[in-house]
Amino acid sequence: MKIAIIGTGSIGKMLGRKWAEAGHEVMFGSREAVRAQAVAAEIAGTMGGGVVEAAAFCEAALLAIPWYAFTDIERAIGEGLDGKIVIDCINPLKSSGSLAIGHKWSAGEEIARTWHRAKVVKAFNHIHVKTFENPVYDGKKATAFYCSNDDDAKTAIVQLAADLGLAPVDAGPIKNARLLEPLGALWMQLAFKLHHNTDLAFLLVDRE
Amino acid sequence: MKIAIIGTGSIGKMLGRKWAEAGHEVMFGSREAVRAQAVAAEIAGTMGGGVVEAAAFCEAALLAIPWYAFTDIERAIGEGLDGKIVIDCINPLKSSGSLAIGHKWSAGEEIARTWHRAKVVKAFNHIHVKTFENPVYDGKKATAFYCSNDDDAKTAIVQLAADLGLAPVDAGPIKNARLLEPLGALWMQLAFKLHHNTDLAFLLVDRE
Repeated sequence: MKIAIIGTGSIGKMLGRKWAEAGHEVMFGSREAVRAQAVAAEIAGTMGGGVVEAAAFCEAALLAIPWYAFTDIERAIGEGLDGKIVIDCINPLKSSGSLAIGHKWSAGEEIARTWHRAKVVKAFNHIHVKTFENPVYDGKKATAFYCSNDDDAKTAIVQLAADLGLAPVDAGPIKNARLLEPLGALWMQLAFKLHHNTDLAFLLVDRE
Repeated sequence: MKIAIIGTGSIGKMLGRKWAEAGHEVMFGSREAVRAQAVAAEIAGTMGGGVVEAAAFCEAALLAIPWYAFTDIERAIGEGLDGKIVIDCINPLKSSGSLAIGHKWSAGEEIARTWHRAKVVKAFNHIHVKTFENPVYDGKKATAFYCSNDDDAKTAIVQLAADLGLAPVDAGPIKNARLLEPLGALWMQLAFKLHHNTDLAFLLVDRE
């Protein structure tokens, strides 16, 4: 496949290199063509050029730019990607780390605001009955993300999740219910609409 | 711990039973006390009663109700959970399956609208360079969720993700970028703010 990598950051470089190694034709594109050419010079079998050139070259474009740069890139490329595949890997984050689009409030925050003298923790919203029944998948415990502003609530939820055989993972303050509630909705989409299997769970995996 | 389970649905029953088995004192609470008592009668070592009674009894309450019921429950309980731990496992969903709070738009949809003649797919926004470098965690490939309204884009992304050694998983239409972008933001919270380790990835696990 002919792939344009729009953007010369670490993700774009990594994917361009891996796809070139897998046999794809890769061209980096940047608003400053020389920057894309410099990246291409480092990565065997790839080319570099302006964004218009990269768009014209490709069958599929990876959009690996910060969200604030999209308007400029869109103006530069114009209709250059019409009919082509565009892979969007952008997280539209503000400098605070919160999402720039949507996601302004959550049930968890509403509950914490309503019961502001209680110690509210968001948890278990992305875990199904089948996972509670048997939380171990191929030897690994399903992850139970939780978030709260209250230390007592966090201590309690760690124990209560462990009592269920789950692996509790701290997901930060109650504000992050804005992130865990979409995870619950994603689970439902996967289980009910896409894969027709409710014995699904998320695992957070790491290498220290 | 003294735990109130507010709600008598499948999640509440399952967790009440598991926590009772783990040695906690469990009381089910429902706006119709007789319903909670019926549930308690089925589950050894648990009690049932009204929501006010359950709130008064507990140290920690699991809120296992539909989101639309929260206002009524809150009116019924009043200050009954002040100072106590409240575990919120609610997904605030509308009947359409979308979230009732926040999450009205996404970068993926904006890009697909702007380039409506291109074939836009949201992907790779929740995967870090370290995962691209080595996508296998303890013998399992990290999951690459993607969403798109375009079949060509989906076919392409499955191949391109496989070329990276990832396990591609269809997450539905481009509208679900509203769910994948929070997943990217969750990854960042976990990696940079909470666990200080960027070699983290999500796995979707299942049992057929």
